[in-house]
Amino acid sequence: MKYYAGIDIGGTNIKAGIVDETGKILIEDSIPTGADRPQDIVLKDIIAQVKGLAEKSGVALSGVGMGSPGMIDSERGIVIYNNNLGWRNFAIGPAVSEALGVPATLENDADAAALGEVVSGCAKGAKRALIITLGTGVGSGFVIDGRIFRGCEFGHMVIVRGGRPCTCGRKGCFESYCSATGLINMTREAGITEADGTVNGRTVFDAADNGSSKAQDIIDDYTGYLACGLANLINGLLPEVVGLGGGIAKQGERLLAPLREKLKEEIYKGLSLPRIVSCELGYKAGLIGAAMSARQ
Amino acid sequence: MKYYAGIDIGGTNIKAGIVDETGKILIEDSIPTGADRPQDIVLKDIIAQVKGLAEKSGVALSGVGMGSPGMIDSERGIVIYNNNLGWRNFAIGPAVSEALGVPATLENDADAAALGEVVSGCAKGAKRALIITLGTGVGSGFVIDGRIFRGCEFGHMVIVRGGRPCTCGRKGCFESYCSATGLINMTREAGITEADGTVNGRTVFDAADNGSSKAQDIIDDYTGYLACGLANLINGLLPEVVGLGGGIAKQGERLLAPLREKLKEEIYKGLSLPRIVSCELGYKAGLIGAAMSARQ
Repeated sequence: MKYYAGIDIGGTNIKAGIVDETGKILIEDSIPTGADRPQDIVLKDIIAQVKGLAEKSGVALSGVGMGSPGMIDSERGIVIYNNNLGWRNFAIGPAVSEALGVPATLENDADAAALGEVVSGCAKGAKRALIITLGTGVGSGFVIDGRIFRGCEFGHMVIVRGGRPCTCGRKGCFESYCSATGLINMTREAGITEADGTVNGRTVFDAADNGSSKAQDIIDDYTGYLACGLANLINGLLPEVVGLGGGIAKQGERLLAPLREKLKEEIYKGLSLPRIVSCELGYKAGLIGAAMSARQ
Repeated sequence: MKYYAGIDIGGTNIKAGIVDETGKILIEDSIPTGADRPQDIVLKDIIAQVKGLAEKSGVALSGVGMGSPGMIDSERGIVIYNNNLGWRNFAIGPAVSEALGVPATLENDADAAALGEVVSGCAKGAKRALIITLGTGVGSGFVIDGRIFRGCEFGHMVIVRGGRPCTCGRKGCFESYCSATGLINMTREAGITEADGTVNGRTVFDAADNGSSKAQDIIDDYTGYLACGLANLINGLLPEVVGLGGGIAKQGERLLAPLREKLKEEIYKGLSLPRIVSCELGYKAGLIGAAMSARQ
């Protein structure tokens, strides 16, 4: 059995773990990122964290895999740009590899999470799996034949030309309609809130369950946009499984059932509808996937 | 040196050739498809055509590759559905393999053409190349690390939700705006025609060259839609080269120069603009690519 360290670098915490080659986590922990500190200090923490975990677990590492948000050069193991961490051209891959004496890989965090779901989550064993995260933005990761397909930034695919402004500068992106932020905006614009006046990703689903037809209309709209973007990707990428992650996906069948109905109308004639499911691993997907990317 | 037969199956003609492993055509010919005949009779013609070419060229074949329009099951070598040819569940791959005594592969014709352009055309040597054909429809093929990425039917990606009806049943597809048909419709709707009242793919470009501001507006609109769809795909697939084929791409820089300007505004911040070029091989792309797909 081979063992790998997986590191999921976030703006708030860095989660690390020792994972066996089948995707099972032996041991894990989390440390604060301290993103206001110089990157070399954060690097020292990461190395100490992994060394500590490897020691506790008592296994020898065959490699280290990292997942990071931002713009990544996976070939060279460099974080080119990460706004939340303040990193610029940070060659973290070579640095970690040198310090730990094993190969180190670096992937986009959404890609790593997608690989995690394919190794041991909602898309286990799928030859082609598309994992879409409906969070602050819309993240997308595609895994084909057990390997991460690098690229796949389909959150910024325009589906409504000239539509809602997106943070990326374009108008009408998939993300501007289908992120949790997009749904919360639609909910608030319709005047639907929690009792305390706040709005979150489940507010509109709860209101619909309580008989609000206005809430039902928003769910129809939202799942319509989601079906539009997903059908574009299903037609183009032919996934067997589409896994939805992030806060909105926790609504389960309240989201998935109407979505599947709309997708049947939208995908290319003759294609079978892929399995449309919720992701299963939560935060562990990034950790497991990062570790498993080191197997490649 | 190894040699492969390439077969490009079209609704009107079937083009075949013997191609060496570097993509050089030794000999080629074309026969009428006779699509109104039973599929087994067409199959006999194809086999005789390849046998004849192999004999004339005097080389031994290591494999046969075919490109076909329609819905293809490449894994099993089956044309599932082809409307123009009237083919249904036609296991042409196994049949050709058995008759010729070598392995036979079957790919979508747009995919095969994309591989041809990567082997010896506009995207020669690119690690990631996207080939978009602007013809009656919009075809798309993606080649990564010298291999066809199966799927990639991005002509039916919605870019204007609720927009122009598409032949596929959706509204606002990339194809409904950016195919030659789409451009010709836009030209005709603006009242711009050739002297004899007809409209073709270059009519609007010629009118713009002759000073028509209305024609210039249409080119702006058209390249705007094209940039929107291409930027979606560039963000998601990260091609080094985007090759445009089909009739409209023959306009060369009259099309490509304004397109590049618009793409610079639309692609994800931090990405470099890929090379945006016209395809080079014309009909030979399908033949060469089909043959080269047999190398895999």
